[in-house]
Amino acid sequence: MTRSGQKIIGVLGGCGPYAGLQLVETIFGQTKAKKDQEHLPVYLSSVPGEIMDRTEYLLDPSIENPAYAIASLIRQMELVGVDVAGIACNTSHAPAIYDVIREELRSSGCTVKLLNIISETIYLLQQTYPHATRIGILSSDGTYRTRLYEDRLIEAGYTVVKPSPAFHHEKIHLCVYHPHFGIKASSAPVTDWAKERIAEATAYFYAQEAEVLILGCTEFSLAADEIAAGGLGVIDSTQALARALIRETHPEKLTQPGLTREAIAAEIG
Amino acid sequence: MTRSGQKIIGVLGGCGPYAGLQLVETIFGQTKAKKDQEHLPVYLSSVPGEIMDRTEYLLDPSIENPAYAIASLIRQMELVGVDVAGIACNTSHAPAIYDVIREELRSSGCTVKLLNIISETIYLLQQTYPHATRIGILSSDGTYRTRLYEDRLIEAGYTVVKPSPAFHHEKIHLCVYHPHFGIKASSAPVTDWAKERIAEATAYFYAQEAEVLILGCTEFSLAADEIAAGGLGVIDSTQALARALIRETHPEKLTQPGLTREAIAAEIG
Repeated sequence: MTRSGQKIIGVLGGCGPYAGLQLVETIFGQTKAKKDQEHLPVYLSSVPGEIMDRTEYLLDPSIENPAYAIASLIRQMELVGVDVAGIACNTSHAPAIYDVIREELRSSGCTVKLLNIISETIYLLQQTYPHATRIGILSSDGTYRTRLYEDRLIEAGYTVVKPSPAFHHEKIHLCVYHPHFGIKASSAPVTDWAKERIAEATAYFYAQEAEVLILGCTEFSLAADEIAAGGLGVIDSTQALARALIRETHPEKLTQPGLTREAIAAEIG
Repeated sequence: MTRSGQKIIGVLGGCGPYAGLQLVETIFGQTKAKKDQEHLPVYLSSVPGEIMDRTEYLLDPSIENPAYAIASLIRQMELVGVDVAGIACNTSHAPAIYDVIREELRSSGCTVKLLNIISETIYLLQQTYPHATRIGILSSDGTYRTRLYEDRLIEAGYTVVKPSPAFHHEKIHLCVYHPHFGIKASSAPVTDWAKERIAEATAYFYAQEAEVLILGCTEFSLAADEIAAGGLGVIDSTQALARALIRETHPEKLTQPGLTREAIAAEIG
């Protein structure tokens, strides 16, 4: 809580640093606010040197689980009054990491309420596209292999449109992770190399009659226009978590989903 | 300090919220880092509801001085281990606010070292353009009237190229503050209305033989390309503060000044 009794949002960033920033920016963008003072209280903790690589851990569980550092940084947020927090990283939500974070917070009596980006993304999908049944996922190889979204979508009754591991690696994973042409290396602008792969990937999902694509890796949000050009509905996991953090702290400040910047400006008068 | 002994940077944001984000992003951009773990530990505190408007206070000192809320939020950063902090707001550096912040921190024994955006901007000016003597300032009316940069530049031996109050208001202040066409209202992209005024303002400074323009208000960084097109050197106060925060905590991580994104990538191999 702030001195005046407002609930405080915590963002666990650093994995990676820009993903944390993007979540904070999305929170600001989804908040009804006409001036500085109407924006919500947010703390960002970005301590990347303490948090080992999440995908490396999932591939080799003999190394240190990044869950301990993440839990320690979330506990620290209690000191500055954070009420509700989210982790700006899809891969950290793999059960081998996320379940340990939750257990660490529970056993230490931490009062910060932690939201789950996977659950919130599926909730936003249900809310935005109530009639969709066939869903595609744009994610890293780590998320693909650990079936992070796939299992939860199937549980929720969806059909998951899933490319082969080779297609996923070449046309989707490398869009983000290619060391020279990927979105992590160059996002302003996204390279033609990545755009061509995005077009091939979206064409695949379109041909397989997927109705909605989930952006299950933060970097894909930076190519949202190119992805939307593929003609499918889009649900962005960063936006889903941002909206959930507002809903759990200041529900009256949450803009309607799917509004453009102009429409938000009109909505708040 | 982090658990592993790294110094922690604190960013006091919230005034406004996007200015805080932009300072954090600039810190990341000026850091030599090839992967997530090589980025620096940063905390962002963005609690805008507690911080009254800085310009309103300067125009009417009978209302609450925002210095007390800012000092309280900086003291709070001690709890999460922040070593060195900066305030992402030029107007908060007016003596009527900034001197009170420093006195509050001193009298409470706060160990956080606070850097000054005005001093750091002049330092970056001296370092980047060692032979420049005639300087123009792009700022809000509040910064213009309180002579925030002007007095310090004259002390440092510079000649300040200063338009009339009417020209400053019409062609510079409103570029940021116009409720529909200003950069605060629309920055992606900057409106043609604002671009025309920026062109007139830079033409004025060019005709008056200014050599360098100081971007003394965060929002002008968002129109840096349009401003640079005016043919003068540019010093961005947000970049100056970001570089100072890195220099005071991890000097070996600081990129060379004035490098493009491509050159930084080449520099770090």
